[in-house]
Amino acid sequence: MRIVDLRIHPIAIADPPLRSSYGLHAPYALRTVAELVSDDGIIGITETYGGEAQIAQFEMLRRQIIGADPYRLTGFLSPMVEGQGGGAARSQTYLVPGENPLDATTRTYAAIEVACLDLIGKTVGRPVCDLIGGRVRDEVPFSAYPFYKHAGGGGEGADAREDEYGEALTPQALVGQVQQMVKRYGFSSIKFKAGVLEPDVEIETVKQLYHTLGPTVPLRIDPNSAWTVETSVRVGRALALELGGGGYLEDPTAGLENMGEVRRRLLGGGIGTPLASNVAVTSFADIPRAVRLEAVQIILCDHHYWGGMRQVQHLACLAKTFGIGLSMHSNSHLGVSLMGMAHVAAATPHLTYACDTHYPWQSEKDEVVLGGRVPIVKGCVHIPEKPGLGVELDYDQLARGRERYEKCPYRKRDDEAEMRKHVDPNWTRKLPRW
Amino acid sequence: MRIVDLRIHPIAIADPPLRSSYGLHAPYALRTVAELVSDDGIIGITETYGGEAQIAQFEMLRRQIIGADPYRLTGFLSPMVEGQGGGAARSQTYLVPGENPLDATTRTYAAIEVACLDLIGKTVGRPVCDLIGGRVRDEVPFSAYPFYKHAGGGGEGADAREDEYGEALTPQALVGQVQQMVKRYGFSSIKFKAGVLEPDVEIETVKQLYHTLGPTVPLRIDPNSAWTVETSVRVGRALALELGGGGYLEDPTAGLENMGEVRRRLLGGGIGTPLASNVAVTSFADIPRAVRLEAVQIILCDHHYWGGMRQVQHLACLAKTFGIGLSMHSNSHLGVSLMGMAHVAAATPHLTYACDTHYPWQSEKDEVVLGGRVPIVKGCVHIPEKPGLGVELDYDQLARGRERYEKCPYRKRDDEAEMRKHVDPNWTRKLPRW
Repeated sequence: MRIVDLRIHPIAIADPPLRSSYGLHAPYALRTVAELVSDDGIIGITETYGGEAQIAQFEMLRRQIIGADPYRLTGFLSPMVEGQGGGAARSQTYLVPGENPLDATTRTYAAIEVACLDLIGKTVGRPVCDLIGGRVRDEVPFSAYPFYKHAGGGGEGADAREDEYGEALTPQALVGQVQQMVKRYGFSSIKFKAGVLEPDVEIETVKQLYHTLGPTVPLRIDPNSAWTVETSVRVGRALALELGGGGYLEDPTAGLENMGEVRRRLLGGGIGTPLASNVAVTSFADIPRAVRLEAVQIILCDHHYWGGMRQVQHLACLAKTFGIGLSMHSNSHLGVSLMGMAHVAAATPHLTYACDTHYPWQSEKDEVVLGGRVPIVKGCVHIPEKPGLGVELDYDQLARGRERYEKCPYRKRDDEAEMRKHVDPNWTRKLPRW
Repeated sequence: MRIVDLRIHPIAIADPPLRSSYGLHAPYALRTVAELVSDDGIIGITETYGGEAQIAQFEMLRRQIIGADPYRLTGFLSPMVEGQGGGAARSQTYLVPGENPLDATTRTYAAIEVACLDLIGKTVGRPVCDLIGGRVRDEVPFSAYPFYKHAGGGGEGADAREDEYGEALTPQALVGQVQQMVKRYGFSSIKFKAGVLEPDVEIETVKQLYHTLGPTVPLRIDPNSAWTVETSVRVGRALALELGGGGYLEDPTAGLENMGEVRRRLLGGGIGTPLASNVAVTSFADIPRAVRLEAVQIILCDHHYWGGMRQVQHLACLAKTFGIGLSMHSNSHLGVSLMGMAHVAAATPHLTYACDTHYPWQSEKDEVVLGGRVPIVKGCVHIPEKPGLGVELDYDQLARGRERYEKCPYRKRDDEAEMRKHVDPNWTRKLPRW
């Protein structure tokens, strides 16, 4: 079996005006869908970050990909991920995911690995999770991912999406948003994006969530490094009860030393709330220092930027070895990425928390998966018996995504620019802000 | 595809009277070869440790194996290896490999994983290394593995094997043994089993090896924990030059604290010879303390007891992350194990040293691989294009191995008993001895 074609589809998908410490989501998120076509006419698919830099990365590898055997291409390209260990850390503290040039090669390797695995799976009639060690679960749990947001569902003009959630810039509105999500998708844990309003408002939001949902629903809060050590400790203390039941405090402050200090001070005060990270620890090179400083108790993996599914499995074993929990990071994405996340999670025993997903924020109008959106039922994605990732492309939908991309004025993600455009002309990202 | 049969073949193979700090190799080493048969009539094979305990382990799983899908069995059984992290360490310091009850489940899981991968590979026409990420090398380097030994090639009575190497209980004889091995197999690195004679004799042996082979051949010495910290440091100092060129000092003394002290004292004296281990670190649970104590700079992996090929790949990533090198441990084995080692090594980028192998010590008369022994050329095993492990069973040879097993009076390895029987009736293993 040989790969005879690489097809790259840059697309834009409507994205609601979600807020985070990075700024504001633009009306469209950029994604790339790629296909590897075998000489048997079978197609392996993948979805990853968008924009021109990502496309250039794929193009650079075209000559190595065409003619390659999909069983062997991942080994042949392995220097792309093997180079990451032992070198400089690739912190995402100051860069939005997908826009960090230091992990461009691991992102691209990951996308190719997934396409190869989908191609192999579709060739031999096997789900991807069963090619990489075998599933340990058929139902992969995801979290609700509430955001403070402005009104609107993303997209612009005739392409604007309906908005079932409305504006949410108060604790009450955010609780309402979560209730809608829980009702629709059956989520049983909540990851709340903070770092947007005053810490006291965000504390109040978590308290109201806890009061509304009860103590059996794990709550996590992620301000994306917006706080000082002092504020982080204050929030950790104020929410000791609310985050204590299987929840965590994610990247409260920037830098591993500061994270370690927050942890020590919370523990010193008898508060065991673990610290999670997907910005202080984004590569294997970050881990030895994180372990030494005891700065991170949970790593959020993401096959998209950790270098693929097998690297995530390596990471899970490493995390387990050092007593570190594992959750999963997400970015605005469609169903191909969701199934990729679900398959790697299905074949990763040490997954100790429900995975993040932005999927509820995307519109069914933008889905490129044939047959429409992947269902999330009782908070879980089910691993089907279908081969590969279990999904195929809807080429009409893909063409519409490409049209949106062509019309879209930007070629990379810039949440600060959006913030200045729509909310505050003088806004800049400031770490720490509070 | 379903597994319809599990066939277990206990065998005994002639083993020369090799010496180590554990004692003396018995005339036969026990191995187990197992087959998984699919409903398509395809057979996946595996080789692992021998004796009754190993067979009982397989039998305990028979009901879970029969009817299982080989793509999914490894995921289903993953608690057998996932249980190992975070728990008690499983040191092999005091037990010969294969006789440690604490790693019985990981050993058995590993054997089943290899058989599943071979079965899958033979079903889809792909080499095992290309199922687990893809090869990064086609030629897997192995080391010569000289031992002090008594005369004879193993086996007993009419079954006694010829002995091309003769007795080697002096530095000169050991150098001769190495020269024979290098000539026949083209090895370009040497792993020397020590802990048998007075340390000064072993120092002299290494010096003669260095003098004979020159500075470009990496030399390693492994006394299997026979020395005190003091002796370890003394040997490390005496052999700073000889072990410095890509060699290492393996498990000089028992226990991670002692290993850490040896390392500190050598480094303090300006000697950077790294310490390797396959007895102080034999499971993921041992690693955090090894890292903290900086006790081990190279881990010798072995898919047979680390829980299989994928666990070895996880280990390699972990080792790389913490700046630890990776080599490979071996035990007396035949060609099925050799090919398993070669395939996992082929698909493991971070393999920083040539692998150990006892293979040259086994007789071609005992080989169970169809077509005879796997060639080692220029010190390397070549990964063929054949599917699975690339080897199949010779059932006549297997039957002969079984006959030897039936005649053999012992059912587990006991190097101390052999030592008392043939060398010194009062001998006991003593750590440290010197």
